[in-house]
Amino acid sequence: MIVRCTLAYDGTGFRGWARQRDQRTVQGVLEAALQRFLRDTPRLSVAGRTDAGVHARGQVVSFDVADTVDLARLHRAVNAMLAPEIVVIDVRAAPPGFDARGSATAREYRYRIDAGPWPDPFTARFVWHRPGALSLGPMRAAARHLVGEHDFASFCRRPPGGSSTVRRLERLSVSRSGDRVEVLARANAFVHQMVRALVGMLVAVGERGRDPDEMPQVLAARDRSAAGPVAPAHGLTLERVVYGRRRAADQRF
Amino acid sequence: MIVRCTLAYDGTGFRGWARQRDQRTVQGVLEAALQRFLRDTPRLSVAGRTDAGVHARGQVVSFDVADTVDLARLHRAVNAMLAPEIVVIDVRAAPPGFDARGSATAREYRYRIDAGPWPDPFTARFVWHRPGALSLGPMRAAARHLVGEHDFASFCRRPPGGSSTVRRLERLSVSRSGDRVEVLARANAFVHQMVRALVGMLVAVGERGRDPDEMPQVLAARDRSAAGPVAPAHGLTLERVVYGRRRAADQRF
Repeated sequence: MIVRCTLAYDGTGFRGWARQRDQRTVQGVLEAALQRFLRDTPRLSVAGRTDAGVHARGQVVSFDVADTVDLARLHRAVNAMLAPEIVVIDVRAAPPGFDARGSATAREYRYRIDAGPWPDPFTARFVWHRPGALSLGPMRAAARHLVGEHDFASFCRRPPGGSSTVRRLERLSVSRSGDRVEVLARANAFVHQMVRALVGMLVAVGERGRDPDEMPQVLAARDRSAAGPVAPAHGLTLERVVYGRRRAADQRF
Repeated sequence: MIVRCTLAYDGTGFRGWARQRDQRTVQGVLEAALQRFLRDTPRLSVAGRTDAGVHARGQVVSFDVADTVDLARLHRAVNAMLAPEIVVIDVRAAPPGFDARGSATAREYRYRIDAGPWPDPFTARFVWHRPGALSLGPMRAAARHLVGEHDFASFCRRPPGGSSTVRRLERLSVSRSGDRVEVLARANAFVHQMVRALVGMLVAVGERGRDPDEMPQVLAARDRSAAGPVAPAHGLTLERVVYGRRRAADQRF
């Protein structure tokens, strides 16, 4: 049976998602826990390969297990080993053919910024403290230029050899509550470091260092240097993965 | 001049407030930072001597410095050394005679409980994960018995030799939002571990292990064993210290 598993994690203590020799990663720690319970190493498919320091509230993984495995026991056993740093929120049997990465139709990330004078010890692990005024009007104007299907090579850390950097950015919205500014980004998929590069650009615009109307040229440049610095990893959280038809609210799986 | 300083801190990495040889404490770390800036060790007075693992959003300390000290520079220098684990929120010159401990007329603590099935990686450092149903009606009934001026020896870890354990508990309220249950406790002062002992008792009542109407006898016993287990430290935060006349909303200092 294919198991679909929804995860939340504090990414602070991990070198990102992907298993790496001699590095503590979310995949490595999760696979070790599953191996202890299953006495077998499942091959994990993951919806969002989060970078070092990036968090998740709604990461989705899938893997194959024998039909006899008790999923409620698996759920409790993994949480007993890993919570609260990694928490399995939901475990269920998925329909045949389900694949956490391949079946996903959209990913939603949220980037949190604290623009107040001092950081907050209670949220500092999950929020980028960037003191100073941010103008939301220009940030939203820039976001409107960026939404849509574009080649995001300018917002991608290392242009991968030959593979496409075209993505469909479905939503890029900016909200404020007190000193907290949040950016929500939703796309069919993201290229490497794309959300952090988009946020870095929006912050530069919000601080009046860049003009919103430069965005079409920045996209057209297809060059990383056109977009400027990326925002730090720890402000970023993968919030949700969508399964189902394009833009549909109901999920096929 | 007397300096009044308001602090927030994540108590996770500290053996409590009070300086101890060979232990990392909030007082020890803060004094070392002040010493580096002032080239002199101030004697700190503190409003709430928080225990190991207890957090603060509005702790208040006071100390004496030369009138020539630039408080805005002190503020920035200390935060540059200690934030985001310890953050100085406010620094100001206090009126003559002000003492963070002696002048305080009330302390407010909040205890956070997550009653949901799994812990939340984003709040786990500051919230006690205690899965299961809590009945707020009985908890509130118990709280009504406990509010007022009483001898809280039953809610005090080690009855201190001879010193009074009578305190005026001004407020003890319980609220719920989703799986989160919060207890707000306000008193002129608290005896050692009093909030955690009160919360431990309220949780026992909320889980139907104790009866709210036992509370008068528990108080009358003046014996720690009458009240049951204390709630763990990490769910507790010192939220606010009040300076001013008894029960007055406006502050004298």
